[in-house]
Amino acid sequence: MADTRTRAGDIAHLGHVEMLTDRYDESLDFFTRVYGLKLSGEDADSAYLRAWDDYEHHSLKLTRAETTGVGHIGYRAASPEALDRCVAVIEASGYPVQGWVDGDDGHGPAFRFGDPFGHVFEIYYETRRYEAPPEDRPALKNTASAFTGMPPRRLDHLNLLAQDVSVFRDFMLTCLGSRVTEYIQLDNGRIGGCWFTVNNKTYDLACTEEHGTGHGRLHHVTYATDQREDILRAADIFLQNGVHIETGPHKHAIQGTFFLYVWEPAGNRVELANAGARLILAPDWEPVRWTEADRKKGQAWGLKTIETFHTHGTPPTAED
Amino acid sequence: MADTRTRAGDIAHLGHVEMLTDRYDESLDFFTRVYGLKLSGEDADSAYLRAWDDYEHHSLKLTRAETTGVGHIGYRAASPEALDRCVAVIEASGYPVQGWVDGDDGHGPAFRFGDPFGHVFEIYYETRRYEAPPEDRPALKNTASAFTGMPPRRLDHLNLLAQDVSVFRDFMLTCLGSRVTEYIQLDNGRIGGCWFTVNNKTYDLACTEEHGTGHGRLHHVTYATDQREDILRAADIFLQNGVHIETGPHKHAIQGTFFLYVWEPAGNRVELANAGARLILAPDWEPVRWTEADRKKGQAWGLKTIETFHTHGTPPTAED
Amino acid sequence: MADTRTRAGDIAHLGHVEMLTDRYDESLDFFTRVYGLKLSGEDADSAYLRAWDDYEHHSLKLTRAETTGVGHIGYRAASPEALDRCVAVIEASGYPVQGWVDGDDGHGPAFRFGDPFGHVFEIYYETRRYEAPPEDRPALKNTASAFTGMPPRRLDHLNLLAQDVSVFRDFMLTCLGSRVTEYIQLDNGRIGGCWFTVNNKTYDLACTEEHGTGHGRLHHVTYATDQREDILRAADIFLQNGVHIETGPHKHAIQGTFFLYVWEPAGNRVELANAGARLILAPDWEPVRWTEADRKKGQAWGLKTIETFHTHGTPPTAED
Amino acid sequence: MADTRTRAGDIAHLGHVEMLTDRYDESLDFFTRVYGLKLSGEDADSAYLRAWDDYEHHSLKLTRAETTGVGHIGYRAASPEALDRCVAVIEASGYPVQGWVDGDDGHGPAFRFGDPFGHVFEIYYETRRYEAPPEDRPALKNTASAFTGMPPRRLDHLNLLAQDVSVFRDFMLTCLGSRVTEYIQLDNGRIGGCWFTVNNKTYDLACTEEHGTGHGRLHHVTYATDQREDILRAADIFLQNGVHIETGPHKHAIQGTFFLYVWEPAGNRVELANAGARLILAPDWEPVRWTEADRKKGQAWGLKTIETFHTHGTPPTAED
Repeated sequence: MADTRTRAGDIAHLGHVEMLTDRYDESLDFFTRVYGLKLSGEDADSAYLRAWDDYEHHSLKLTRAETTGVGHIGYRAASPEALDRCVAVIEASGYPVQGWVDGDDGHGPAFRFGDPFGHVFEIYYETRRYEAPPEDRPALKNTASAFTGMPPRRLDHLNLLAQDVSVFRDFMLTCLGSRVTEYIQLDNGRIGGCWFTVNNKTYDLACTEEHGTGHGRLHHVTYATDQREDILRAADIFLQNGVHIETGPHKHAIQGTFFLYVWEPAGNRVELANAGARLILAPDWEPVRWTEADRKKGQAWGLKTIETFHTHGTPPTAED
Repeated sequence: MADTRTRAGDIAHLGHVEMLTDRYDESLDFFTRVYGLKLSGEDADSAYLRAWDDYEHHSLKLTRAETTGVGHIGYRAASPEALDRCVAVIEASGYPVQGWVDGDDGHGPAFRFGDPFGHVFEIYYETRRYEAPPEDRPALKNTASAFTGMPPRRLDHLNLLAQDVSVFRDFMLTCLGSRVTEYIQLDNGRIGGCWFTVNNKTYDLACTEEHGTGHGRLHHVTYATDQREDILRAADIFLQNGVHIETGPHKHAIQGTFFLYVWEPAGNRVELANAGARLILAPDWEPVRWTEADRKKGQAWGLKTIETFHTHGTPPTAED
Repeated sequence: MADTRTRAGDIAHLGHVEMLTDRYDESLDFFTRVYGLKLSGEDADSAYLRAWDDYEHHSLKLTRAETTGVGHIGYRAASPEALDRCVAVIEASGYPVQGWVDGDDGHGPAFRFGDPFGHVFEIYYETRRYEAPPEDRPALKNTASAFTGMPPRRLDHLNLLAQDVSVFRDFMLTCLGSRVTEYIQLDNGRIGGCWFTVNNKTYDLACTEEHGTGHGRLHHVTYATDQREDILRAADIFLQNGVHIETGPHKHAIQGTFFLYVWEPAGNRVELANAGARLILAPDWEPVRWTEADRKKGQAWGLKTIETFHTHGTPPTAED
Repeated sequence: MADTRTRAGDIAHLGHVEMLTDRYDESLDFFTRVYGLKLSGEDADSAYLRAWDDYEHHSLKLTRAETTGVGHIGYRAASPEALDRCVAVIEASGYPVQGWVDGDDGHGPAFRFGDPFGHVFEIYYETRRYEAPPEDRPALKNTASAFTGMPPRRLDHLNLLAQDVSVFRDFMLTCLGSRVTEYIQLDNGRIGGCWFTVNNKTYDLACTEEHGTGHGRLHHVTYATDQREDILRAADIFLQNGVHIETGPHKHAIQGTFFLYVWEPAGNRVELANAGARLILAPDWEPVRWTEADRKKGQAWGLKTIETFHTHGTPPTAED
């Protein structure tokens, strides 16, 4: 009998995010010079970026556009067979399907589909490993390219906005075989936010409630740092470079992540995060439920969540 | 057709290690007061210990014995069905099988078997989650028990010694469905060391070559810390408490782990380690090969490997 | 001709602060078990506490009282002759003088005097060095006692409230020979806050404006940590122990200090702080002026200063 | 009566070190691109360098030469009067005097003199504060220039070699009014090493015994970092850039400094160090004596001191 849900393990990991910008040059300068990604390549419309230990050609595709937000989200399947199984599940699922696309500079054929809120996903298996040119060869052969000392080590996760998080959750469970590690349950019973993972990371995608009229919006994209100190240092680098620091450094109660949120020049929110040694290893991890009462305590160390964190997403809405 | 090798994903994670000690009281004092584990329970022969964020009842079983070394190594399966599949593979494999045992205070029935070098493994699914008594309840509900500020957050990995690492490697691939992430290939073609994982951790078990007459020996057991700073602080705590610091803090070239090795009072080597944000996410990760020429450069930052690191294991051998 | 102001260098350093508590047992438990000070001794009314590398008998004298706040502030003179010179200056200064007192368990004769706002100061030279008993001997002979792994290394500074910071500034310059390293100048010309030092530390005492009816009040007492990571870890320890975290961890724009403020059980505000490698070495350091426009940017990384930070002091006022 | 020894407090701090290099271009590239200093200016023979929070025009003068080593060492006096007093003491002391020189791009008139081992010192008061051009303005007005994220924050200390450390000690006490904070006393009674300070830093100059035929040699120059993590990160940067890492990161037993030593391209040893919150505040600090027995324990965490640390200095000797 056909699977009605993607199997655990068939999707290996979040591979890349395409971010749209209407200030391409400034955004590219920010990501390369200030935030600390490396440029793998560039074509007419996009720059391909990666952190120093991302093993694929790129983990961020920065694309010129008339507005901001997320272009598409790419997950890598665990094998060609796993990819086929996922595609079969998705085709049978009733979720909107765009079908196979050729891939770009960074990977092979990808199967595109969408969630009910306008976000575009793709899954692929064939990828282009980053091949470091001589000047970018790592000193240690178990890392993907030269150590730069810049904070981001690898792509970590992204956060999308959806009008109904429960509906989004079903999409993630069905199409990507994700499991839920933590979620917010509002007093009215609705799910206010949900954190998903396809592997042992504590989350690779979060979804929180869209309160306004936005559609298919992005809340933020995040890279992981090796240490919390990298984030404290980054805060001073952002300050020095006039970057808008929205909130942090502080520690989230949910997921326990040490965080720092800034807005890149076009307005997309980007984060640096450190989870310490936290992983979800239990195969039967019971999703952690956070209530409104819990949330009233603020972040882990008491910081009140800043108002824009609930309202700012990209692209902006008519209300903005 | 029956599987001849345990499937990737069927074993979820390393669950616990049983360590033998002929100085039980001193070892227990070390692990609880100095190293920073918590006591979950104790019976006539063993103390059950865990780090503050280990979700199971224990990750270290410390057992009174006439000598030192490793009692058994427990891995948790991903599901009851996965456990059955693994058992079938192992029974058919020809590796020495001891069969089902009742489990102890910390988990349900376990299937025991051995590698060709005298190490005893067990796999189990039913487990006893750690239920924190009121005084040990965590402030954040997504952690397993009260934060203590002590360095170890969770069990990370162990390192065994074997006369033939290639033979050990076959055992791990067959019985646990492990994959090799890095290895040392000596100039004579032999495998000098091999690092294994069953999940996205960079390794959960390492095996290095036994040079002497030892049999079934332990090289070390390791807990993970959230930050490298926890390890620097631990070094001062070990110094203050008269613990033998063998080597570190420094960074391994292999796996890039920031490490610190000490000997607990009975002589077993224990480590604190931090991998930063490093994970093995690529489903087709190509094992990294280290040559003798590479190894001559020492550890990542040039530290020469200390002689005892090549010779000291537990239990001691007649040569010691 | 007699000095009209204490000479630079005649006062060596801030020695200790006496803190009053109307919840003595809870405060003592907090300082020893949670905050991480050591108990040097106790008499009928007071506990004598110190951080692990404070070289004197105590740096915090915790005294049973009917309310909270600061009892007295002790500075150590650089020599007996320096002490005499200071006393002569103070006696001639017109500031209220209480005269010589015997000292307590921790030091010899002390000369007591007051500022115009009700705070009591004392200066002394003869001191009682902390003599570690065998169980508290440091592993390294250049530190004062056993390393505990707890965050506070040494007393750093305190912050007092005064109705007129300019008047307080004159007091500090005259009596202690302090220099001003940074200050806040309000748009109306008043000095809103002022940071003082008698040595190369960036400050050992700060004074900020008392907005209400309080008299002789304390804003906070601070210990220094070796690393910022100690403060992040402390935040989790405070969270776990139910301590009220008022604000932080974050970085002050003024002085650039990485900070964390909590309230001990009786309500006195205590801080942990890390200045990194920052020192005031220039003999002609020009005081840094911060304007209201500067202050509107919030703390260094944009955190808005929490309201209680402007209003909460000890003892409470009738308004509280 | 004339002073026979410079008064405590008359010398404010170590100001700059002139380092000689016979590979000027490579050394300059190392210091600016890898080690993380900034270039303040350059003339025909020298580059003027500083860390991001050094308040003077330069703290390192890198000079083209036919060999390596130290050109001169500059200390800044506390005032013009203090400078005059020091000069009088030095002129009367019998130590070799070169007299007043004009100063260079970074400071006013300087009085030059020498120790008995061929090292050239100068003292000066008038200095040129670093005036940051717009592109180097700091985000926080209490720091000297733009934060770069690079490890060195300010010049910390240097280490010279002398055939007789006791004789060197007398020179430092007489001419600079230094005090000794720690020293090594060999079993034969000789002083093997001595650590000096003119302020609250734990040391600004160290002298260790020259074992060979070298004359006026340099052991190393050190910059301070804000955090130990900056040093761990620097180790990876040095590794990536092919810099010779001699030893570390580790912690010295003497002074408790967290250290990392590398050789710049011409062979001069440079260090990055972090002292945490350690300061010498006691006006009557008793110098800490380290014996050969102490030294046999190795560095704080047991690292054996590497052989080249005892033999390598610059310039090289005929034996090298």
